[in-house]
Amino acid sequence: MHAGVHRLSAAGPSDTAVLDEAIAHGLIRPETIVAVLGKTEGNGGVNDFTRGFATASFRTCLVRHLGIPAAVVEARVPLVMSGGTEGGLSPHWLVFTVDRTPGTTPRDDRKSLALGIAFTRLFTPEDIGRRIQAVETARAVKAAMADAAIADASDVHFVQVKCPLLTASRTAEATARGGRVVTPDTYESMGFSRGASALGVAMALGEVADEAVQDERICHDFDLFSSRASTSAGIELMRNEILVLGNSAAWYSHFAIGHAVMGDALDAAAVDRALTMADTALGDAVGTTQTDRLVALFCKAEASRTGTIRGHRHIMLDDSDIKATRHARALVGGVLAGRIGDTRLFVSGGAEHQGPEGGGPLAVIISLRS
Amino acid sequence: MHAGVHRLSAAGPSDTAVLDEAIAHGLIRPETIVAVLGKTEGNGGVNDFTRGFATASFRTCLVRHLGIPAAVVEARVPLVMSGGTEGGLSPHWLVFTVDRTPGTTPRDDRKSLALGIAFTRLFTPEDIGRRIQAVETARAVKAAMADAAIADASDVHFVQVKCPLLTASRTAEATARGGRVVTPDTYESMGFSRGASALGVAMALGEVADEAVQDERICHDFDLFSSRASTSAGIELMRNEILVLGNSAAWYSHFAIGHAVMGDALDAAAVDRALTMADTALGDAVGTTQTDRLVALFCKAEASRTGTIRGHRHIMLDDSDIKATRHARALVGGVLAGRIGDTRLFVSGGAEHQGPEGGGPLAVIISLRS
Amino acid sequence: MHAGVHRLSAAGPSDTAVLDEAIAHGLIRPETIVAVLGKTEGNGGVNDFTRGFATASFRTCLVRHLGIPAAVVEARVPLVMSGGTEGGLSPHWLVFTVDRTPGTTPRDDRKSLALGIAFTRLFTPEDIGRRIQAVETARAVKAAMADAAIADASDVHFVQVKCPLLTASRTAEATARGGRVVTPDTYESMGFSRGASALGVAMALGEVADEAVQDERICHDFDLFSSRASTSAGIELMRNEILVLGNSAAWYSHFAIGHAVMGDALDAAAVDRALTMADTALGDAVGTTQTDRLVALFCKAEASRTGTIRGHRHIMLDDSDIKATRHARALVGGVLAGRIGDTRLFVSGGAEHQGPEGGGPLAVIISLRS
Amino acid sequence: MHAGVHRLSAAGPSDTAVLDEAIAHGLIRPETIVAVLGKTEGNGGVNDFTRGFATASFRTCLVRHLGIPAAVVEARVPLVMSGGTEGGLSPHWLVFTVDRTPGTTPRDDRKSLALGIAFTRLFTPEDIGRRIQAVETARAVKAAMADAAIADASDVHFVQVKCPLLTASRTAEATARGGRVVTPDTYESMGFSRGASALGVAMALGEVADEAVQDERICHDFDLFSSRASTSAGIELMRNEILVLGNSAAWYSHFAIGHAVMGDALDAAAVDRALTMADTALGDAVGTTQTDRLVALFCKAEASRTGTIRGHRHIMLDDSDIKATRHARALVGGVLAGRIGDTRLFVSGGAEHQGPEGGGPLAVIISLRS
Repeated sequence: MHAGVHRLSAAGPSDTAVLDEAIAHGLIRPETIVAVLGKTEGNGGVNDFTRGFATASFRTCLVRHLGIPAAVVEARVPLVMSGGTEGGLSPHWLVFTVDRTPGTTPRDDRKSLALGIAFTRLFTPEDIGRRIQAVETARAVKAAMADAAIADASDVHFVQVKCPLLTASRTAEATARGGRVVTPDTYESMGFSRGASALGVAMALGEVADEAVQDERICHDFDLFSSRASTSAGIELMRNEILVLGNSAAWYSHFAIGHAVMGDALDAAAVDRALTMADTALGDAVGTTQTDRLVALFCKAEASRTGTIRGHRHIMLDDSDIKATRHARALVGGVLAGRIGDTRLFVSGGAEHQGPEGGGPLAVIISLRS
Repeated sequence: MHAGVHRLSAAGPSDTAVLDEAIAHGLIRPETIVAVLGKTEGNGGVNDFTRGFATASFRTCLVRHLGIPAAVVEARVPLVMSGGTEGGLSPHWLVFTVDRTPGTTPRDDRKSLALGIAFTRLFTPEDIGRRIQAVETARAVKAAMADAAIADASDVHFVQVKCPLLTASRTAEATARGGRVVTPDTYESMGFSRGASALGVAMALGEVADEAVQDERICHDFDLFSSRASTSAGIELMRNEILVLGNSAAWYSHFAIGHAVMGDALDAAAVDRALTMADTALGDAVGTTQTDRLVALFCKAEASRTGTIRGHRHIMLDDSDIKATRHARALVGGVLAGRIGDTRLFVSGGAEHQGPEGGGPLAVIISLRS
Repeated sequence: MHAGVHRLSAAGPSDTAVLDEAIAHGLIRPETIVAVLGKTEGNGGVNDFTRGFATASFRTCLVRHLGIPAAVVEARVPLVMSGGTEGGLSPHWLVFTVDRTPGTTPRDDRKSLALGIAFTRLFTPEDIGRRIQAVETARAVKAAMADAAIADASDVHFVQVKCPLLTASRTAEATARGGRVVTPDTYESMGFSRGASALGVAMALGEVADEAVQDERICHDFDLFSSRASTSAGIELMRNEILVLGNSAAWYSHFAIGHAVMGDALDAAAVDRALTMADTALGDAVGTTQTDRLVALFCKAEASRTGTIRGHRHIMLDDSDIKATRHARALVGGVLAGRIGDTRLFVSGGAEHQGPEGGGPLAVIISLRS
Repeated sequence: MHAGVHRLSAAGPSDTAVLDEAIAHGLIRPETIVAVLGKTEGNGGVNDFTRGFATASFRTCLVRHLGIPAAVVEARVPLVMSGGTEGGLSPHWLVFTVDRTPGTTPRDDRKSLALGIAFTRLFTPEDIGRRIQAVETARAVKAAMADAAIADASDVHFVQVKCPLLTASRTAEATARGGRVVTPDTYESMGFSRGASALGVAMALGEVADEAVQDERICHDFDLFSSRASTSAGIELMRNEILVLGNSAAWYSHFAIGHAVMGDALDAAAVDRALTMADTALGDAVGTTQTDRLVALFCKAEASRTGTIRGHRHIMLDDSDIKATRHARALVGGVLAGRIGDTRLFVSGGAEHQGPEGGGPLAVIISLRS
C-alpha cells in the first residue's frame, strides 16, 4: 500500500477546480482518494457554513469523478473541514490517497506514512459531549488503526476527528422527548463535542485510562488529554469521522509523519521536534531546519484558560466581539508561519483535552529527500 | 540627559495603577515622564474607545502625580494609544522618561537612546489624509529631532505618530461649510490619515522627496514609504503628536534602539537585524539571539494588498466580519512573539506608506548588558 | 399565465428539503419554477458564502427534480440570494412559479401579479460599478418587462437584481491586464455594484434620465434613485440577474403587488401604503391592517449617511465591529416585523440609489381574499 | 420632593459636555442629580469599556460641578451604563434629579414620579450569579423603595440594577483561594449576574417566593421572573447599584411612570399598555397614541431560547460572529422605534428572569400635559 498527500490551495470554500486540475494532469487518480481535509475561511463557529459548503462541493466533485452516488461517497470518504483561517492562514485542501496496486510493496523495512479511516454510529443530541461519545470514538479509532495496519499505538502520530455540535433545533428535538443535552449554548457545545472526542482518542491510544473518562470530567479536568488528537466540530454531520495518521512498515510511501506537543502558544520549536521525529522514522537525517520538505502541518490552538501566556495577559477570553478560538488560530498560525515561512497550515481551534492547557498537539508530514 | 523606558503590563485600558505602583516604588519619578505609549485592547477601528479611555485615565493620573492642570498635561505629554491586541498580544504601557539632572553626562562618546517630542497644529477635517497633513507632520518631526538633539536623520530609528480620523459628525461639519473630506468612510479615513502622516515622516527623514507627496499619491502610490514611521489613528485628537526615537551621543542612557524593515508579514528575522543594529550602536556584541535584553518592540502590520503572502492566498481583505487590520496585528504579533517568546509587543495596524507593501518597519529598544 | 409565490422557511442555507416537501405534497410543480429568492443567514458581505451555498443547493435540487443539466438550470432560473438575517429576520425562500397551462386565462380585466426574468451578459471586473453596468441592466430590465407582458413602467412594482462584486483576485485579474476597477476595496465594491445596477433599473423605468447616469455620479449623487429597485451583490456570479415584479391584466393569479417608499428607517407606515396600492390593483378593499393576507414583503435598508435618524445620532457608520448594512437590516427588520407581526421579511442591505437617503423601496405581495 | 428626568443625546461615551451645557443653561441644578443612566455604544459584552469610560467621565464631571471628591460621588450617585446601541438605537443619557426644596409639595393627592437609590455590599467573585446576590439585591431594593417613599410594591414600575461580571482575573482570584465561581466563561457570567439580580428584584416586589430562589434555578428555571426588573452587567463595579422608579403621592413632579410586559420581541403594543398605565396614574386621559409626551422608555430584550419568534426561526443563538444580546437589542429597538418614531430608547440586552421567555419588561415615563 502506498499513501500519498497532496496540498492544494483553495480559492474559496467551493473551489474543487484545483482537484479537477490535479486529476486532469494525472497528479491524483480519483479512485485512490480516501479522505479530504480542508481549512476553510469561515468563522469556525456554529454558523460557519463554509465547512458544509466545502463538504457538499467535494461530494459533488467526487460523484462526478468516480461515477458513484453521493451516498456512497458520503459513506466512504471522510471530508473533514475545519473552519477559520484568521490572521495569515491560507485556505487549502489536503487530499489523502491510498494506492493498493500490487507491486508497490515496501522497498525495505523502513516505516512510512500509513493511514486509516473509520466512523462512529450517528449520535443523538444527548450523546454529544458525554462519555458515550468518547467510548464510541475510541472504538472507531481502533478500527481506523486496524485499517491503517498500525498495531502499536506509538506509531500513531495524529488522529483527526470531525464531530458534531448542538444547534437550537437539535436541542429542541432532544428536549421535546425529555432528553437533556450537555449545554443549551450552541457555541459551547462545540467544545464539549471536541473534548469528548479527544478523550476517546486518548483512551484508544492508552494516554488516559478508560474509567477516567466520565461526564463530569469532560471539559473540566484538563489534566486528561491526548497528545495526538485533533478534533473539529461542525454543523454538517451527526457522527464522528476519524482519520488516523502514523508510520508503518506495512506501507510504502514517499512520506513520513512525526508529532510533538506545543507546550504553549509560542512554542515554535515544537515544529523542529516533530520534524526530527519524522526524520527518525524515515531513518533520514534531514536536519530540523529543512522546512522545504514539509508537505503538511497540523496543530491545535487554544487560548490559555489562565488568561496569560508566559506570564503576560492575553485578552482572548474577555473579547465579546471575536471568539477566543479565532484569536488563538491567528496567534498560533502566526507563530508557526513565522517559523516555517508558509501559511498553508491546518491550525484548528478549540483544543479541549488536546495537549496541555494553552498548548496543543502538532504533527508534520515530510516528503523523502529526492 | 538620560532617557529611560519602562514597560508596564496593563490589566485594562484604564489601568494606571501600575504606574502609581512604579512611582510608589521609586522606579519612575513622575516629573521625568515625557510620553506614554500604550497598546489597548479595543478593535483599533473608528469606535475604539479604549484609546480615549486610556488617554483620559493617564491624564488624570499625571494630574494627580504632578499637581498641574489637565490642560498642561495634555499640552506637554503625548499619550499615544494604539488599539488592538488581537491574537496573543498583551496590553501594556511604555512610559518614556527624560532625566535632565546635571551630572548624568555621557560616560563616553557612545551613542544611546535619545527622544524628542513635538505636535502639529490642530487639523480641520478637510486637512486629514492630504498633503497638508504630511507637510505639517514633517515640520513637527524636525522639531522633535531638534528636541532629541539628533542632527542626522540616520540616527532616527522610529517615529511614532498619533493622528486623527474622520467621524460622521466631523465630516458633516466640513460639508456644512462647503468643505470636502478625503473620504466619507470613517474607517477608510484612518488609513488616509496614517498614510499622509507617514509620508510626512518620510519627507522629514529624506526618504521621499517633498514634491512627491501629492494628494493623489497618498494611499495610492505605495512605492513611497518610510522605513521608520509608525502612525496610528484615533478618534480622541485632532492634531498629530510625534515621538522621535533614535540614538545620540548627546544622551547618556542604559538603552539603545535599532530598526529593520519586515519585508513581509512572515519576516521574523527582522528582529535579529534590528537587534544587531542596536548592538552596533552600543558598540556591544550581544548576539542576535539574546532577546532577554529586549525592553520594547514596535512594528507595523498590514494585510498585503496582493491578497497573498509568499504566494499563498490570505483572506484578510475579503473578510466582512473582522477588519484586515485586526487580522494583520494578530498574524504579525504571532510571528514576532514566536520569535522572541514575549507577547508585550507594540504591533500597530495599518501600515500605509510605512514600509513596503505587506511588510512594515520594526524597531527594538535593548538595555545595556549589566 | 398564472404567477404564484410560495414562502418557505429555511432551516439553513442548504435547506432545500422544504422545497422537496412542497413538491411532494403537490403544492409546487417543479417545472413551473421560474425564480427563487432567498434570505440567507450570512453576514451579507464579501465573504458571505451562505448565498453561494444556497445557490448551489437549489441548483442541485432543481437538477434532481427537472432532470436537466446544472448549466441549463443556471441559464434559465435566477437564484437570487440575499445574505443577512440580523436581529429577528427569519431565513426563508420565495419560490416564484409561472403556469402557462392553457385554460388559466384571466377571469376578467383585473390586473394581477406578473413577473419576468432576464440576464445581462457577463461583466468584467472593470465594468462593475460603472455606467456600463447600469446600461446593460436597463436593457435587461426592459427584456424582463417584455417577458412579464408589462408595457407600462408604472405597472412595475419591484425589480430585484442580483449583481456581482469585486474580490482581491478579480481586481488582480483586471490590474494584470492594465484595467482599472472602480475601487480596490472589496466590501466597497458591493455598494458600487448595487448602485450602478439600481440606476440601471431607474433608467429602464424612466425614473432617471439616461444621460444622468455617469461614472462620477454613481455612489456620489444620491438624489438619483429608483423607488422600485432592490439590488443585492454576491460573490457567486459575474452577470446581473433580474426579476421584474408587477401587475398585469395579461396574467391571472391569486396575488397582487404594491409598493411604497420608506422615507426613513422608521417609516413603518410604508407597509400600509404599499398594502393599499396592492388592494387597489386588485379592485379590493382589504383595509391596511389586514397583514394576514401578506405573503411576501421586500425592502431595502441602509444607514442614513447623515449619521442621524429623525435628528438623533445612530452609530452604524462608526462601528468597526459590525458593518452598517448589518445594523440597518436589523433595524428595518424590527420596524417592519413590529408592524406586521412576522419576521419572514426580505430585507436587503445597501440601498445605494434605491429610494431616498436613509430610506428605501418596499413592496408587498398579497393574496386574494378567499 | 420633586423628581425630574432629563434625556440628553450623547456624541460618544465620554460626552459629558451635554450635561455641562444643560447646567450652564439652568435646566439642571447639579446638586439635585441623584442618578445617571446611559446607553453607550459598546458591544454590551465583557470587554465593553464604553460603560466604564462613561462612568469615569461622569464622575469627573460631577466632581467638577459639585466640588466633592470622586469617592463621595461614587458612593452617592449611581452611574448605570448599559452598553449596546445596535441597529438604530441612539446613545443618550437619562439624568435623574430630586429637588427637596421646601415648598414643592404635592398639588393634590395625585401620584407622580418617585425614585429611590440603594447599593449592596461589594460582592466576591463567588457570590456572583448565586442566591446570595439575589438576597442582597432584594434587601437593597427594599431600601431603595424606602428612599423613594414607596410603601406598596404595586407602585414600583421599574427597577434598574447595575451588577458585576466575572473576568478571567476575578475567576483566578477566587480559584486561588479555593473558591468556585458560577461559570468560568466571562460572557456567560454576565447572564448569571443579571439573572440573580433580577430574581432579587422579584423577591423584593413579591413576584417570586424567597425560597424559590435557589442556585440551581438561577438561569435554569425561567418561569421565575420579575415583570419590572432591568439588570445590566458591567466590568466596572463589584456591587449592585439599584434605582427604583415608581409613582407616589409623597412626591410632586411633572412626570409619571407606567409599565407593561412585552410578551415577545414583536410586542410593540406593550408601549400603548404602559402609556395607558402612566396616564391612569396621572388621572389623565392622554390616549395611547400620544407618544410625543414620552420622555423615557426602558426595556429589556432577549433572543427567545426556543429559537423562534411567533413560530419562525431566528438565527440569534446560532451566530458566532454577533452575540445574541446584540441582535436582540437591534430587533427590539427597531420594533419600538418603529412604533414611537424615536431611537433614544434604553433597550438593554440579556433579560434572564426579566419578563417571560423571549419577552421583557418595558416602562415609560411621560410628562404632564402642559
